[in-house]
Amino acid sequence: MNDLPVTINDVKSAANRIAPYIHRTPVLTSLSIDKVCNAELYFKCENFQKTGSFKMRGASNAVFSLDEETAKKGVATHSSGNFAQALSLAARKRGIKAYVVMPENSPQVKKDAVAGYGAEITFCKPTQLAREETLKQVVERTGATFIHPYNNETVIAGQGTAGLELIEQAPRLDALIVPVGGGGLISGNAISFSAMSPDTLVYAAEPAGADDAYRSFRAGEIIPSVNPDTIADGLLTSLGSLTFPIIRELVKDIITVTDERIIAAMRLIWERMKIIVEPSAAVTLGAVLTQPELFTGKRVGLLLSGGNVDLTKLPW
Amino acid sequence: MNDLPVTINDVKSAANRIAPYIHRTPVLTSLSIDKVCNAELYFKCENFQKTGSFKMRGASNAVFSLDEETAKKGVATHSSGNFAQALSLAARKRGIKAYVVMPENSPQVKKDAVAGYGAEITFCKPTQLAREETLKQVVERTGATFIHPYNNETVIAGQGTAGLELIEQAPRLDALIVPVGGGGLISGNAISFSAMSPDTLVYAAEPAGADDAYRSFRAGEIIPSVNPDTIADGLLTSLGSLTFPIIRELVKDIITVTDERIIAAMRLIWERMKIIVEPSAAVTLGAVLTQPELFTGKRVGLLLSGGNVDLTKLPW
Repeated sequence: MNDLPVTINDVKSAANRIAPYIHRTPVLTSLSIDKVCNAELYFKCENFQKTGSFKMRGASNAVFSLDEETAKKGVATHSSGNFAQALSLAARKRGIKAYVVMPENSPQVKKDAVAGYGAEITFCKPTQLAREETLKQVVERTGATFIHPYNNETVIAGQGTAGLELIEQAPRLDALIVPVGGGGLISGNAISFSAMSPDTLVYAAEPAGADDAYRSFRAGEIIPSVNPDTIADGLLTSLGSLTFPIIRELVKDIITVTDERIIAAMRLIWERMKIIVEPSAAVTLGAVLTQPELFTGKRVGLLLSGGNVDLTKLPW
Repeated sequence: MNDLPVTINDVKSAANRIAPYIHRTPVLTSLSIDKVCNAELYFKCENFQKTGSFKMRGASNAVFSLDEETAKKGVATHSSGNFAQALSLAARKRGIKAYVVMPENSPQVKKDAVAGYGAEITFCKPTQLAREETLKQVVERTGATFIHPYNNETVIAGQGTAGLELIEQAPRLDALIVPVGGGGLISGNAISFSAMSPDTLVYAAEPAGADDAYRSFRAGEIIPSVNPDTIADGLLTSLGSLTFPIIRELVKDIITVTDERIIAAMRLIWERMKIIVEPSAAVTLGAVLTQPELFTGKRVGLLLSGGNVDLTKLPW
């Protein structure tokens, strides 16, 4: 573990650094879902986090880790989703500028959210190449520091702070299930649990229609996500050079979940718990429904990563 | 106040009696909604209560107040909504039968919910007369005790326990806003606040399309609800002979809210707080949006009464 790019001390420092800017989110339980799953489930509610997702943790840690001189020039990222909102709010809290590169075809609701947090948006063609090219120009023009949404040590350490809280709120978990997209959330929290609750088995939950992490895990090398097709739109990205080694070393297994099960799990959470989670969060409960034998009779933590959904376009 | 039918001691006894059977629900806040309303809002989340609404409080108190002999014969009510579910679960927890009279045209989802809690359902024609007639037959046949959904002392005392918790969780509120339908929730909680937090002004929030409480309050006598038309389907009923005198004596005013504002408030809560509330709960925030001048700069409690909505039929 010595050569992993992020350590438990990084996560603990992050927790102190970001405490003023984030919520300590609650852990909820549901007897009725426990009965369905034959397990004791502890839901860590990052859907209640500022900006509606865990991304505020990593973004805050990245923004507040910068030295004064560097920070002054602002921060930049490419994202059409939760990370863009989080970075924009974190930058505003530090009083610096955030530059966000977004595909021009992003949903209006996401453009509005990012703009609402005061970021300067530059639109680009919806291709990977255009995104990187545009970001490069923005960084050259402004001198802003590029903050990658997940392949960044301070971001990973920040995401791991959710797990530190969960270990206090629901001790002695037998298992933890975390959604995997680019891997920032699961790698940060795998570090927290391996150090502070080493008996907890850490599982990743991934949409079957975007199973590049599952295939990478088995192949032993990063296999990029190509044409992913899933309702869990926060989990489309490929693993990163920093997140993959942590996942390889610390994650027990990756469970793939069909969209049908993701939707069933999402609906179960909405109906029984009366809370709003996005499909990318519901994949965790979907994993329990998919491989119940792994969790029967166990105390299981589920990281509900976010709650940003378009309420006019529900999947049922 | 001496001649009111329910006292603060009744509410305190209820709190002890029902503690094993209900959740102590959380109080949530939202900086972003506070900013919209220019007030400090404290949301008491009875949408997280067992069976998805505050009705579990009153139903449990009624069921567990019965002596052993009476209880054995079961309990009966007429309701197509939240009270039927609550009474069914409370009865199951005591190990006795619940008999529920429901209009035959009730939505399938409500029939299933009540049946799921193990109640025996008798269907009737969807008229007030048929409902009372059928209930009478059920009571005669079974010897069950009729528990009125709101015009019942033990039910009113049980509902007031939400306020006792809120006073501890968010002390020194300037105002409290409670939805009003039959008046069980607001009369119970007006009793709690008048005794334990007498400086808090208690307001009722009522749909403009079912404003019989508003008109009764002004007329000084009960004016029945006739052909109510509102999305807030938990607030269609008329005030009762027990609830009206309490409301007259202890409630500061009744604020009527259009369906348009109820829907806007509901959406604001879903989007910003990531929690699911039903229209009948959102009417409280709708009241703040309707008469903001009453609440500017104030600490305001809002009783979010329930979260039972048909997720396939959202009003936006």
